[in-house]
Amino acid sequence: MLEQLKKEVYEANMQLPKLDLVTFTWGNVSGIDRDQGLFVIKPSGVDYDKLQPEDLVVVDLTGKVVEGKLNPSSDTPTHTYLYNHFPKIGGIVHTHSPWAVAFAAAKMDIPALNTTHADTFYTDVPAADALTKEEIEEDYEGNTGKTIVRTFNERHLDYEATPGSLVSQHGPFCWGETPAKAVYNAKVLEVVAEEDYHTLQLTRSDSHLPQYLLDKHYYRKHGENAYYGQNNAQSKTHAKRK
Amino acid sequence: MLEQLKKEVYEANMQLPKLDLVTFTWGNVSGIDRDQGLFVIKPSGVDYDKLQPEDLVVVDLTGKVVEGKLNPSSDTPTHTYLYNHFPKIGGIVHTHSPWAVAFAAAKMDIPALNTTHADTFYTDVPAADALTKEEIEEDYEGNTGKTIVRTFNERHLDYEATPGSLVSQHGPFCWGETPAKAVYNAKVLEVVAEEDYHTLQLTRSDSHLPQYLLDKHYYRKHGENAYYGQNNAQSKTHAKRK
Amino acid sequence: MLEQLKKEVYEANMQLPKLDLVTFTWGNVSGIDRDQGLFVIKPSGVDYDKLQPEDLVVVDLTGKVVEGKLNPSSDTPTHTYLYNHFPKIGGIVHTHSPWAVAFAAAKMDIPALNTTHADTFYTDVPAADALTKEEIEEDYEGNTGKTIVRTFNERHLDYEATPGSLVSQHGPFCWGETPAKAVYNAKVLEVVAEEDYHTLQLTRSDSHLPQYLLDKHYYRKHGENAYYGQNNAQSKTHAKRK
Amino acid sequence: MLEQLKKEVYEANMQLPKLDLVTFTWGNVSGIDRDQGLFVIKPSGVDYDKLQPEDLVVVDLTGKVVEGKLNPSSDTPTHTYLYNHFPKIGGIVHTHSPWAVAFAAAKMDIPALNTTHADTFYTDVPAADALTKEEIEEDYEGNTGKTIVRTFNERHLDYEATPGSLVSQHGPFCWGETPAKAVYNAKVLEVVAEEDYHTLQLTRSDSHLPQYLLDKHYYRKHGENAYYGQNNAQSKTHAKRK
Repeated sequence: MLEQLKKEVYEANMQLPKLDLVTFTWGNVSGIDRDQGLFVIKPSGVDYDKLQPEDLVVVDLTGKVVEGKLNPSSDTPTHTYLYNHFPKIGGIVHTHSPWAVAFAAAKMDIPALNTTHADTFYTDVPAADALTKEEIEEDYEGNTGKTIVRTFNERHLDYEATPGSLVSQHGPFCWGETPAKAVYNAKVLEVVAEEDYHTLQLTRSDSHLPQYLLDKHYYRKHGENAYYGQNNAQSKTHAKRK
Repeated sequence: MLEQLKKEVYEANMQLPKLDLVTFTWGNVSGIDRDQGLFVIKPSGVDYDKLQPEDLVVVDLTGKVVEGKLNPSSDTPTHTYLYNHFPKIGGIVHTHSPWAVAFAAAKMDIPALNTTHADTFYTDVPAADALTKEEIEEDYEGNTGKTIVRTFNERHLDYEATPGSLVSQHGPFCWGETPAKAVYNAKVLEVVAEEDYHTLQLTRSDSHLPQYLLDKHYYRKHGENAYYGQNNAQSKTHAKRK
Repeated sequence: MLEQLKKEVYEANMQLPKLDLVTFTWGNVSGIDRDQGLFVIKPSGVDYDKLQPEDLVVVDLTGKVVEGKLNPSSDTPTHTYLYNHFPKIGGIVHTHSPWAVAFAAAKMDIPALNTTHADTFYTDVPAADALTKEEIEEDYEGNTGKTIVRTFNERHLDYEATPGSLVSQHGPFCWGETPAKAVYNAKVLEVVAEEDYHTLQLTRSDSHLPQYLLDKHYYRKHGENAYYGQNNAQSKTHAKRK
Repeated sequence: MLEQLKKEVYEANMQLPKLDLVTFTWGNVSGIDRDQGLFVIKPSGVDYDKLQPEDLVVVDLTGKVVEGKLNPSSDTPTHTYLYNHFPKIGGIVHTHSPWAVAFAAAKMDIPALNTTHADTFYTDVPAADALTKEEIEEDYEGNTGKTIVRTFNERHLDYEATPGSLVSQHGPFCWGETPAKAVYNAKVLEVVAEEDYHTLQLTRSDSHLPQYLLDKHYYRKHGENAYYGQNNAQSKTHAKRK
């Protein structure tokens, strides 16, 4: 079942080592078929150089395994939570990429300091609250999704315009319209985290981008007035936010 | 048309990933035929591993596409502006190379602190002013060229002796006599930015090079008294500046 | 003799350059056969690209060479000491990996600041005391093992739950149930050291993980309630520590 | 002439890009035949991937080219000066390796903070004084050698025990018994510079190694009591310094 989606999710997973986003097995990508309400995810702890498309596990939106001989990623409840609460996303990726982890451990947002950031993320990328003792013991991975969603709600962030979040003390989760797009966003976040780290050491001035520059770069690439690339207005669902 | 120039510009573009200057499609190189008043530039958003010489777009000095099936780089108006105002340059490169971006985001010049810098850049590499809201909304990419040229004029910089600039909050633009030379200069800038970052963390003393050392290293490689390499006095147009 | 173990130790040694943990010959892995009381170790100063399984040296638990034409690693007395005092370990690795060395030179523990750390190391990784003049002159390499064991005793650390240590002014030693697992732990330590360095530059707040998060991540992967990977409860000897 | 030495010097030059010590053509290695009083050096500005053994230039100890169709490295007078004043060295390497350059630009010694350093360099690696205006204009490259030798004399350093130096505002020069050994030392210096940079950011305590640890590590590898590697007492000329 879901052979095409498995192929997409497999290929998105295999991009993680190619883009230097994972060490060992520390990452996972999933992709969803919204019509069937099923998502496909990497099995837990399998080496990337041994991973095969048929190893992927199919899970429903209650988190139950529907097909697959292997255990799904231990982060499956986080993916389930995010798919249920961010209804327009098609793929999710979690990594322990080191620059994003450095910010997550410091419980710091990745600030929007340059146009590389603004091309993909319309705002600072938040560091969602660390989980409490109760949240960890009750349902660690599910509540990891919950703290992300809660943070987006509290800060009035649009998950389509800011397609990723840190979880404090842990690391980054990114998402997108497709599994491939989610991985692209995860790489952007890592690159931007590295650049921001260095900028923050160079200056003590607040060097956040002004809103009009965020608007300009974001809408060069997204929405009906986009003019970057070969498919202008490629993403008509992103109408200009005021 | 311009087959030889397309080949040069294609090869210069393909150097960007080889020299670790780009992630994904975040860079572009152009080259100009001054006799015909036409330049050749990378198409917008095309992957480097799919780029072919015939994909390149030919543009005139008003910024109008003269040949090509694909959209030119969205940064084309910046290239156009620079070719019009820096009449001796033959190639331009824009990247989002991460060390240069870190300085651009901090709105800091890349200071001349070592001889690696002085071999290629005769002065600090300036961080041109960030664009105002009006400049961004009126003509973002064109005004990106304008802020560079204005900065060079205000600071009395010679664009041949300082073949590159940062644009604050954005990233680096470099140029040179040829597209290949522009890419070479972009790599030097990235290497020097990394070195300078570390030097600035090591010491709080002002460690700018003295003018006589800048002179020595720059004129070892440039001008009629050059003695580096196998083609001495290779660049006779760079007479010694006082 | 010990052909299977030699193969394992050889392969674990060859992982060091693949995982970017060594420059030149600056590392060594050993593995022990507890029944025979013999361990196999890399010969001293041999290039990784010339190393062959038959070059490995067999040593007994008094540190005496039992088989081998080459000198064993000059760090052999450290391995001997650790095998004698940490009776459940099956492999040891020493490297000069640069991020771990940076902490060792600063005489700083590698603090538990993120879940990447907690997945493998249950506590901060200690920087064992630098050796005194007397210890260095008496038996440098043996006393290098002694300072590690003494530090674990003084701090009441469990060497199975914290499978590695720095030696101040020198570098990291890691261990594990097998030579391969020791190398895995050495790579985790290096990755975590890099992440921690950046976190410590980003914030002056104490961002140590709380104990309940250390528990959660460590016991996701270890002990009878483990649920990460395909072999749950893979390591039954790690009962939950209170 | 000097075919064997040319081969050695060629191979040592080709190690520079393999060890990530050069960008573009920014490095050069030479080697000397002491009996004939002639040294072989890389030609100026030739790409490493085009360099052939027969391109190397033979120079005498007055700096005069004796054989070769190409210009020798522009740094030839520095090599000449060093060969004349450090009579026991057999090879010299100059690079612009970025971590060493960062210290040179800050005019800071590379301090002896860890045993990786002590295995190769018996003391801090000095940052020789920057050249004065007069020295630069009179004989830049020759005086670059002179500032190194003067610094070693003023600080009573032994050039065999400390086989390298920074030149302030410029970069590193290393040397050794052979061209290959000089390149080895240049790589050690770069690795140690990177580690030291991070240690210096982690702590404000003085973490210099004590003399007894410098002695221990240096004499494990050098002198009649050496016991590292397969050729003990490999370097009998290094008797223990008091």
